[in-house]
Amino acid sequence: MENTKKTNTPLQMNGQGAQSLGSFLFDCLKKEGITEIFGVPGDYNFSLLDSLEKYEGIQFINGRNELNSGYAADAYARIKGISALITTFGVGELSACNAIAGANSENVPIIHIVGSPPDMQQKEHKLMHHTLMDGNFDVFRKVYEPITAYTAVLTPDNAEIEIPNAIRIAKEMKKPVYLVVADDLIMKSVLAHPQAATQQPMTNQKTLQAAIDHARQLLSQAQNTVLLADVKTVRFGLQEPVQKLVESMNVPVASTMYGKGAFNESHPSYIGVYGGAFGSPDVRDVVENADCIIGVGLVLADTNTASFTAKLNPMQMIEIQPKMVKIGEAVYPHILAEDMLASLQRIEYKQQKPVAKGVFPYDQRVERAGDLISADAYYPRFQQMLKEGDIVVAETGTFFYGMTQVKLPQDVTFITQGGWQSIGYATPSTYGACIAAPDRRVILFTGDGSLQLTAQEISSMLYYGCKPIIFVLNNNGYTIEKYLNVKTEDQLYNQIPNWNYTKLAEAFGGEAFTATVRTNEELDQAIKQVEMENKNKLCLIEMIASDPMDAPEYMRNMRNYLEQQEKERS
Amino acid sequence: MENTKKTNTPLQMNGQGAQSLGSFLFDCLKKEGITEIFGVPGDYNFSLLDSLEKYEGIQFINGRNELNSGYAADAYARIKGISALITTFGVGELSACNAIAGANSENVPIIHIVGSPPDMQQKEHKLMHHTLMDGNFDVFRKVYEPITAYTAVLTPDNAEIEIPNAIRIAKEMKKPVYLVVADDLIMKSVLAHPQAATQQPMTNQKTLQAAIDHARQLLSQAQNTVLLADVKTVRFGLQEPVQKLVESMNVPVASTMYGKGAFNESHPSYIGVYGGAFGSPDVRDVVENADCIIGVGLVLADTNTASFTAKLNPMQMIEIQPKMVKIGEAVYPHILAEDMLASLQRIEYKQQKPVAKGVFPYDQRVERAGDLISADAYYPRFQQMLKEGDIVVAETGTFFYGMTQVKLPQDVTFITQGGWQSIGYATPSTYGACIAAPDRRVILFTGDGSLQLTAQEISSMLYYGCKPIIFVLNNNGYTIEKYLNVKTEDQLYNQIPNWNYTKLAEAFGGEAFTATVRTNEELDQAIKQVEMENKNKLCLIEMIASDPMDAPEYMRNMRNYLEQQEKERS
Repeated sequence: MENTKKTNTPLQMNGQGAQSLGSFLFDCLKKEGITEIFGVPGDYNFSLLDSLEKYEGIQFINGRNELNSGYAADAYARIKGISALITTFGVGELSACNAIAGANSENVPIIHIVGSPPDMQQKEHKLMHHTLMDGNFDVFRKVYEPITAYTAVLTPDNAEIEIPNAIRIAKEMKKPVYLVVADDLIMKSVLAHPQAATQQPMTNQKTLQAAIDHARQLLSQAQNTVLLADVKTVRFGLQEPVQKLVESMNVPVASTMYGKGAFNESHPSYIGVYGGAFGSPDVRDVVENADCIIGVGLVLADTNTASFTAKLNPMQMIEIQPKMVKIGEAVYPHILAEDMLASLQRIEYKQQKPVAKGVFPYDQRVERAGDLISADAYYPRFQQMLKEGDIVVAETGTFFYGMTQVKLPQDVTFITQGGWQSIGYATPSTYGACIAAPDRRVILFTGDGSLQLTAQEISSMLYYGCKPIIFVLNNNGYTIEKYLNVKTEDQLYNQIPNWNYTKLAEAFGGEAFTATVRTNEELDQAIKQVEMENKNKLCLIEMIASDPMDAPEYMRNMRNYLEQQEKERS
Repeated sequence: MENTKKTNTPLQMNGQGAQSLGSFLFDCLKKEGITEIFGVPGDYNFSLLDSLEKYEGIQFINGRNELNSGYAADAYARIKGISALITTFGVGELSACNAIAGANSENVPIIHIVGSPPDMQQKEHKLMHHTLMDGNFDVFRKVYEPITAYTAVLTPDNAEIEIPNAIRIAKEMKKPVYLVVADDLIMKSVLAHPQAATQQPMTNQKTLQAAIDHARQLLSQAQNTVLLADVKTVRFGLQEPVQKLVESMNVPVASTMYGKGAFNESHPSYIGVYGGAFGSPDVRDVVENADCIIGVGLVLADTNTASFTAKLNPMQMIEIQPKMVKIGEAVYPHILAEDMLASLQRIEYKQQKPVAKGVFPYDQRVERAGDLISADAYYPRFQQMLKEGDIVVAETGTFFYGMTQVKLPQDVTFITQGGWQSIGYATPSTYGACIAAPDRRVILFTGDGSLQLTAQEISSMLYYGCKPIIFVLNNNGYTIEKYLNVKTEDQLYNQIPNWNYTKLAEAFGGEAFTATVRTNEELDQAIKQVEMENKNKLCLIEMIASDPMDAPEYMRNMRNYLEQQEKERS
């Protein structure tokens, strides 16, 4: 309180209308293009929300709970570059830990703002509700420290330093940050600070030259170069320089599972998704027989390398990361990816032979209309239905493995958690995508098991008039988990209640177009219908799988591999 | 891996069948009376769940998500003394943070067991799914450190030490603990350790004598002593010694809001709930005019003291905490509450005048049958319907403030989060209560706003055949939040979608008895019906409030007080 008074004085002496902490915060967020903030109200964030309700240019978007609001903010940031989330102290913020850690793992910048008990109560260590009843108000910030890039306790004194600082870190690292502020400080005037000269990350030109020399040497021997575009290509906005490099070099491009959508899949140089031993054999041939691999934004994790079956010779790799380059065993720090990509282009390496036309697993529809639906038939149908500009959200589980193999039209945003893989993510993230891009078609592919974790966000979508198309694959349980567990069979714990998915919208007090399909023909008809209906309302198609273990080829390959491994162990 | 091999050798040399880590863990939990474990499967806890599925005497109880399973485990522990929760690494465990921190705040012991990636992958710092993609596998344990009493990474080597140790701490402190174990270590044999002599907490007899001398001095002056039973009386199982003391002293007893149910409310010495300036004036008179207050297990937090309006003179207080005593300004450490209560009894203080018969706010039904439902009418009706042995779950919000004022029959377990106050807690906790006590009637009182956060646990209850009676107060938004925010009106952010609550069960694929009531008469009829129907099925009564701001008297008093305070500030 003492500080606050001190803060006010010089500003009032200026004779200027001093800005409140809340309004300064929202100005900073608006500058980043944030026009909606997700969250859930609670009494310690009332002043934040009251200020926001009066603030021009940003709307508060209510979620049914904080985890879901966090997921929604994640998808919003993937589309608009950054997002914000408001929760309340303890009970609110701690429900969002999974969403925030997921954003960390997946390189998504979210500004998480938490309203905390009044300043004086904190200073007096009073026992307040939503605390551990120990007078300690710094516990939950400590919970967030390991899973965010930055945390700060805001005051009117430090707000003009800490808020821009936190936003800068979030944008630079593409990670979530955490700001907590006492409810009664929101309306206090911020202390003016001279705009600090922020240091932009820069490329060390000498190191860049060395890296380019090394790359030139490698490329001079290479006749079969391939570019592998991974997830950080998308997150760090490198699609354009990557495409320019590819066109100048005339090399084939594969994306990884995590990097799905990192490269325009309609481009003649695109050959498909590289999925190690489980994915397309054609793509595998090209990638694993390359004599030079330019890897952009790689995250070589288990589910991105088909359980580490990917064979990428590090000695033939030019690995371009957002802020460093690695060639063979040599690390070149302090190089920005954009600079490396542009400099590589200037080498003027050009591969002579034309890129072979890609063959995609679901190019051909091979179905009989009356047959019961099966993965081999419905993925080609999905591929056919996708349109330029769609946002596709694929839930962790069966649909992740199937939808990553579907060829996407141009300018499709593909949203999935390749690495974090939290089931339940996709439904709220569809909500976030609808709010971020109200004019784009949003299509969710989810499973019964996953939907149940976060189903109430269908209610939020209905409430805000969102009109996604939702496919729910009802295969009677956690099929992905059944695939991954090769040690036992018929696990009770992988069973789930069988919901009436088409009745959810009504229970949630809304109206939706719904259909239940069992055959290819019914699915085909339903898709034709939703292509009309979704202009007016949310659409939900329940796909009832006759065989709960039916799955895309990728998953069958994975299962065979895991079984083989288990056999070898025992 | 090296350690593991070393571990096996001495056991095999013993010629005994060595016990696996999983089986040892479950033995320890079973010894504590745990017959069900809550959780959600994930690939890093497969071995835990596979072992559990084969294990005799403990059943795995699936939840729709981890937060809900955590809440269910919390209620289970309140009924059976302790509980366990199994989640998967990262994505699973982090969804349960709020539930675990809540158990910490509310003194509820939960053993949270997390399955993590295979040991070798961790040691090699591989990039695995469900991680932050930095090769660090200790991040999430660090998240849990500030909100649990103990954390440990289990190995076959340390399991026989760490598991009993963690359980001992959880029981002693009545707090959650955290154990994480690599999936592939579950089947490894544990290294035998000689049973460590655990030191039981003991009373220091000299300190006890000093405290008793001090208490005797205070009591010798006292003619109007009152006992105030708070939440830790329940959590530390002190109800019986408290009742004995009360009977020997012939003093009136009030409970606090958090301590609701700590003292048998049918007992002639019970006078009601003490709620400072907002609660019953009769109880307030007795408590605030007492010349000695024996406070048992007090947590004098804001929502337990009616925004700190409670007037409890510390100089007249004998405060008995689970492991210490405070009298006036003097602290007497290392005294167990049981010992202090028993010794106090031996003072042979006996108040002469009889305890005046308590008058309870909802003793009288003052309704007209055809009137629209209102708090003043339905709380008396609820009081009338409650039966000996019921479990009553009251959600944070309006029902918390109303149901704490309802007089309970004998042996009713009252479940609420007085201090942590996480909305959404009550529905999953009803689920946990049904699993813990399948033969008792469980009644949930929840609001529309709160229900939406965790509604899917109604599906779990249907799946496992639980038959609670659920009252949903549909007052069109977060009424409690509207009450607490006295600065602005008609906050958009306190509005919520209006669900068809009676259609939820059908959407969740189950069958329920449902009713929607708008008048006192309809409510009365519906209660009569559910008293029959709930033997066969889950029952849900939607109460539609005609006035969204209708609330129990306690809340109206609170609102007046907050408005007064706001007026004084501005």
